[in-house]
Amino acid sequence: MLQIDFWYEFASTYSYPAAMRIEDAAKARGVGVRWRPFLLGPIFFDQGWCNSPFNIYPAKGRYMWRDLERICGSLGLPFARPDPFPQNSLTAARLALAVDEAERPAFTRAVYAAQFGERRQIAGKETLAAILAKLQLEPDAHFARASSDAIKMRLKEETDEARRLGVFGTPAFVVGDELFWGNDRLEAALDWAAKRG
Amino acid sequence: MLQIDFWYEFASTYSYPAAMRIEDAAKARGVGVRWRPFLLGPIFFDQGWCNSPFNIYPAKGRYMWRDLERICGSLGLPFARPDPFPQNSLTAARLALAVDEAERPAFTRAVYAAQFGERRQIAGKETLAAILAKLQLEPDAHFARASSDAIKMRLKEETDEARRLGVFGTPAFVVGDELFWGNDRLEAALDWAAKRG
Repeated sequence: MLQIDFWYEFASTYSYPAAMRIEDAAKARGVGVRWRPFLLGPIFFDQGWCNSPFNIYPAKGRYMWRDLERICGSLGLPFARPDPFPQNSLTAARLALAVDEAERPAFTRAVYAAQFGERRQIAGKETLAAILAKLQLEPDAHFARASSDAIKMRLKEETDEARRLGVFGTPAFVVGDELFWGNDRLEAALDWAAKRG
Repeated sequence: MLQIDFWYEFASTYSYPAAMRIEDAAKARGVGVRWRPFLLGPIFFDQGWCNSPFNIYPAKGRYMWRDLERICGSLGLPFARPDPFPQNSLTAARLALAVDEAERPAFTRAVYAAQFGERRQIAGKETLAAILAKLQLEPDAHFARASSDAIKMRLKEETDEARRLGVFGTPAFVVGDELFWGNDRLEAALDWAAKRG
């Protein structure tokens, strides 16, 4: 089957609209999606950043929030700027790898919607536990699995793989050797997969 | 008339496809375009960059060149990566302000096409003189005007105005108080102008 890898970091702003719309857009082209959560922090750190570039470069940050608000408006997605930003995404990323692959898209969308649509905190356990429960995934068992060495290691390996693929920001879409970056490249990436997959 | 301001830096890679397609896209929506050349260097310098971020961050740079190649391919635009990059754009920017406003779009497109489509050097006089001559603009007179205090001052003022508007990269499009950044935002900016102009 034609396939695209969707690489995302839970604190990433433009990954919110991408996560909410990728499944329909992929289905319309007969393309399958592999959901690949990872941590962008270590890759930003390689670039000399210890914070989001949207905080480091204020003009870029001001623009991004307004641009994201316009994009959500045009898609009919609720938007509420998270505070603080960025949120610590470590637990969310580990949980996304701990749930069954079939549950990963719904879990991911729920985390983005809570963070960027309802301004809920995703760093601690409260919001994440509520999301798991709503998806009928037993919270305690999943938190335990998320903090296992196997999942910790897997998240590190996924982050290393993203770096190896040249991912430097998210959302990123990978089709074979081709990398596409940004919510605005989703269609180009899916078209590439549909034509050349 | 509905209007959009198109802010561009001649060394800017994604401004090449934007410059080549803005006029048709704007005409299709009944929107007029004001062409606003300026220098991005001083604004990058404010952000702590003494070079293009595409050179400072190699993963981002590698991606950009491939992405630009794909975009040019999809638009049927010739593409040849300039060497060196970035090119010094000071003379080109002054000339763009020195020519009559009616000639600015054609002059601008010719500079981008020479630089990114034919790998010609735009820092010195040779390519720029050939472009002026081809547009039947007397080269010596325009170089003289481009080095006048009035044009030097105007370029500084335009750069200050871009900074004031929050421009931090190019191409940028401004419609009233709304800023749009990137070749991929051209349609959104024009639609904004057409609806709310």
